[in-house]
Amino acid sequence: MILERFKVPVKDQVFVSEAALRRTVTQIFEKLGLTPEDAAEGADVLTMTDLRGVETHGVSNMLRAYVRDYKAGKLDSRSGWRIVRESPGTAVIDAERRLGIMVGPKAMRLAIDKARRVGVGVVTVFNSGHFGAIGHYAMQAAEQGMVGVCFTGAGLSVVPTFAAKPLLGTNPIALAAPARHEAPMLFDAATSAIAGNKIRLAMRVGSPLLPGWVTDKEGIPIMEEKPVFDRDEYHQAPLGGTREQGSHKGYGFAMMAEVLSTVLSGALPTMLAAGSGSKNHFAAYNIEAFTDPEQFKDTMDGMLKTLRTATPAPGQERVLYPGLSEAEEIQHRRAHGIPLHKEVIQWFGVCTGEMGLEPLATMR
Amino acid sequence: MILERFKVPVKDQVFVSEAALRRTVTQIFEKLGLTPEDAAEGADVLTMTDLRGVETHGVSNMLRAYVRDYKAGKLDSRSGWRIVRESPGTAVIDAERRLGIMVGPKAMRLAIDKARRVGVGVVTVFNSGHFGAIGHYAMQAAEQGMVGVCFTGAGLSVVPTFAAKPLLGTNPIALAAPARHEAPMLFDAATSAIAGNKIRLAMRVGSPLLPGWVTDKEGIPIMEEKPVFDRDEYHQAPLGGTREQGSHKGYGFAMMAEVLSTVLSGALPTMLAAGSGSKNHFAAYNIEAFTDPEQFKDTMDGMLKTLRTATPAPGQERVLYPGLSEAEEIQHRRAHGIPLHKEVIQWFGVCTGEMGLEPLATMR
Repeated sequence: MILERFKVPVKDQVFVSEAALRRTVTQIFEKLGLTPEDAAEGADVLTMTDLRGVETHGVSNMLRAYVRDYKAGKLDSRSGWRIVRESPGTAVIDAERRLGIMVGPKAMRLAIDKARRVGVGVVTVFNSGHFGAIGHYAMQAAEQGMVGVCFTGAGLSVVPTFAAKPLLGTNPIALAAPARHEAPMLFDAATSAIAGNKIRLAMRVGSPLLPGWVTDKEGIPIMEEKPVFDRDEYHQAPLGGTREQGSHKGYGFAMMAEVLSTVLSGALPTMLAAGSGSKNHFAAYNIEAFTDPEQFKDTMDGMLKTLRTATPAPGQERVLYPGLSEAEEIQHRRAHGIPLHKEVIQWFGVCTGEMGLEPLATMR
Repeated sequence: MILERFKVPVKDQVFVSEAALRRTVTQIFEKLGLTPEDAAEGADVLTMTDLRGVETHGVSNMLRAYVRDYKAGKLDSRSGWRIVRESPGTAVIDAERRLGIMVGPKAMRLAIDKARRVGVGVVTVFNSGHFGAIGHYAMQAAEQGMVGVCFTGAGLSVVPTFAAKPLLGTNPIALAAPARHEAPMLFDAATSAIAGNKIRLAMRVGSPLLPGWVTDKEGIPIMEEKPVFDRDEYHQAPLGGTREQGSHKGYGFAMMAEVLSTVLSGALPTMLAAGSGSKNHFAAYNIEAFTDPEQFKDTMDGMLKTLRTATPAPGQERVLYPGLSEAEEIQHRRAHGIPLHKEVIQWFGVCTGEMGLEPLATMR
């Protein structure tokens, strides 16, 4: 459900195939010292995110930051992690400065294993690099016939309602659930009015920021449309924008994500410890511990189809449900390629050149 | 954090003590056929909700509806419930048309028991009456040194983004977590722009609705301030109000609550089965399964104090965190009484009169 204004302008699009993107991203990660397994896992998270059309969290916005952080020694490329506490339904992982997109898939698999045994599994992770689009991990559970839920605590960009300075991160929340004939439900949203990466993306595609998305440097929500030139001129507003419009709810959801990821993993939030990395909460709910899995899928189908076929409001084309456009985008991009901004392709050229790799193959 | 416009106007306030309110509400429930234990449990949920200042979900808005539904035979006053499926970490309860405020406390206690054994406990409930303010159940876990989380699926009042008709309920989400010196975190919010009861409350206190809170009868968000005369003129908008302001996120959170409560309890959402009652998800996270509980409380204190003492934005008095005003309100109302609208006192007079009970004692 990405807004039109955030899409790569047609004139700047260069298409690459899923296979080519996977191959080159995997090779880059291997060059950075990751094991072939970890490299493939991380490339899978990024490629799937681009296939879903979540450009803010795919290779375009994230890969160059990851490469930079590996090169700067901020991320550890070795395989591994450390379980610091464990119970039948729970585990806490010290990621020891591994990148989240390598740790995340393993953490969700552990949560799924626990859910198989005791009905529900919760794994929290701290001291990690960026997790990318956390909907990916929720989808892992859905692919195993479970409900998957993720919460992230990371960063210091969102201004709590009535405050002057940012004290929370964009702290996203995600849920995925399987259906039968309908595309699975996949909800993945920052608890800020817009995702942090969207401001950078808006700058790249030359799009203005809308009312209620950001605050000024003193914390006052900006309620008119603004072109964005300098990321540092603004702080982010919680979902809702202003108190009257419900920003205390966006703020509360950010706090919920912070407690369930950061505090429940025994770590400190960024407001108390700058540079403490990303924290995540991975939950898997074993549907058959709750109800008949076939009935669950039928109910999901009934609900999702009702939403998909609902009469649109005047002026609207159709009603979407969370995950529908992502599923359609996967089909479309698998058939026609993934559109990357020409500037991203240039970055790939420099990166593969420096590493002595084949350049990323483009489609046309 | 209730908006000023929703408070009972001073001229209409009649004060009652916590003890008097508990006593009369318990007696009313007993007259309706509930056991003394269930009556006291339900009265506790309602009285605590009023003490917290959550007037939308206390006796003012809810008790008369509950009394009406018991009298109409829509609710079963007998004690009991039925566990339909259970695993070490999970259980599913058929509430068999019991009122949610009697079932909820028991369901959260079961989740807490399970969390003690396997680290996390999740109990879903279906076929139930209204649950009141679900933050109350999350607080039960916090009082036991755990993190409590609740999700509700119920109703058909919120219009999904781009749709013409309401297909979801206000589906609230709540989290409570203990601190040491700070008041506990307590977040409890409808995933709609405003709670459903707030429209009724706005009518009673003569307050207008703000932009982005509601849609017209065709699903188009109303973006100007409007006086409200007829509840049926409007549908509710998801948190965010419009797509550009993030209503797809409010819609997604409503779907998240629906999946984790309704679909995970094997029930049908209201959009597929009118009159299917409320569904709820009660989760307890045993902090010591994750980390040192003392460290957890210290981190909560550090975070909540940082927020509470943060510099306010120009024009704002102070920064709140979720649960702070509720804790202050409890202290204040325990000392000075609970302000009820004189019209609510009149209803109590009629109700206790019909039942042959002593009238609700007022303070002045």
